[in-house]
Amino acid sequence: NETLKAALGRSSWHLFHTILARYPESPTIEEQDILKQYLKLFATVYPCGDCASHFQLLLSKYPPQVSNRVNAALWGCEIHNKVNQRLGKDIYDCSNILEDYDCGC
Amino acid sequence: NETLKAALGRSSWHLFHTILARYPESPTIEEQDILKQYLKLFATVYPCGDCASHFQLLLSKYPPQVSNRVNAALWGCEIHNKVNQRLGKDIYDCSNILEDYDCGC
Ligand SMILES: Cc1cc2nc3c(=O)[nH]c(=O)nc-3n(C[C@H](O)[C@H](O)[C@H](O)COP(=O)(O)OP(=O)(O)OC[C@H]3O[C@@H](n4cnc5c(N)ncnc54)[C@H](O)[C@@H]3O)c2cc1C
Ligand SMILES: Cc1cc2nc3c(=O)[nH]c(=O)nc-3n(C[C@H](O)[C@H](O)[C@H](O)COP(=O)(O)OP(=O)(O)OC[C@H]3O[C@@H](n4cnc5c(N)ncnc54)[C@H](O)[C@@H]3O)c2cc1C
Repeated sequence: NETLKAALGRSSWHLFHTILARYPESPTIEEQDILKQYLKLFATVYPCGDCASHFQLLLSKYPPQVSNRVNAALWGCEIHNKVNQRLGKDIYDCSNILEDYDCGC
Repeated sequence: NETLKAALGRSSWHLFHTILARYPESPTIEEQDILKQYLKLFATVYPCGDCASHFQLLLSKYPPQVSNRVNAALWGCEIHNKVNQRLGKDIYDCSNILEDYDCGC
């Protein structure tokens, strides 16, 4: 069911980008490990199996940038653009990514 | 911002319940570990700090049931109900949880 799959994708990207936009500006080594580990497990448990295996390949080709908030958020925007590209969607402008996913929380 | 926080919550629960509804019916020990680990990290990186610490407490009080799909999905429904309860929301009927989060994927 393509409608349900797309809705799940939108929810997941929403959470994904918000996590990155709230990632610490100066993360500790432990926080960097936690984010890397979280992203790896997210790619493993993502419910659409076909999406998950494609995304795992993308993650190994473009490893998460966990050095600080801006780099992490830009990395996330770019990897989502790789998925957009593969699906024939428009490329998203990453220049205001932190503001775009400011959850105010 | 309560509106953005609520929208993030809806997206996150959508992904959360769909992951559980697609969890294997007979998971291996490795799959059980992956789910436990994912849920723990999800509770760590969840962008609303206040929500995250409450949810971490809930997770330690009600550890994830990872023995099979139905148990995992019911556990997820019940823990979301604990959050509903704390926020003064209606309790959700868990009896069709697998169908409710069938992503068709
Ligand atoms: C990890 C993952 C892998 C996926 N793999 C597949 C797959 O292999 N096949 C498949 O059919 N579907 C896949 N999906 C779903 C797909 O990416 C879309 O979510 C779905 O098709 C709905 O698309 P959409 O056009 O509504 O926008 P989405 O791509 O869901 O984006 C939602 C919103 O985010 C914003 N946005 C768009 N691009 C970016 C960006 N680069 N950075 C930040 N924000 C952006 C826009 O406001 C957009 O409306 C995957 C989803 C995820 C989370
Ligand atoms: C881990 C986590 C912790 C949170 N902690 C807080 C917090 O401490 N404070 C705060 O203000 N907000 C918190 N939130 C957000 C809050 O839970 C809601 O998401 C938000 O208030 C929006 O609520 P809603 O009424 O739209 O429905 P939501 O609770 O977001 O639920 C979305 C939809 O899921 C379905 N649903 C409802 N209950 C269940 C259930 N038990 N099982 C399956 N499906 C169900 C319904 O169709 C509902 O419309 C948290 C969110 C998450 C993911």
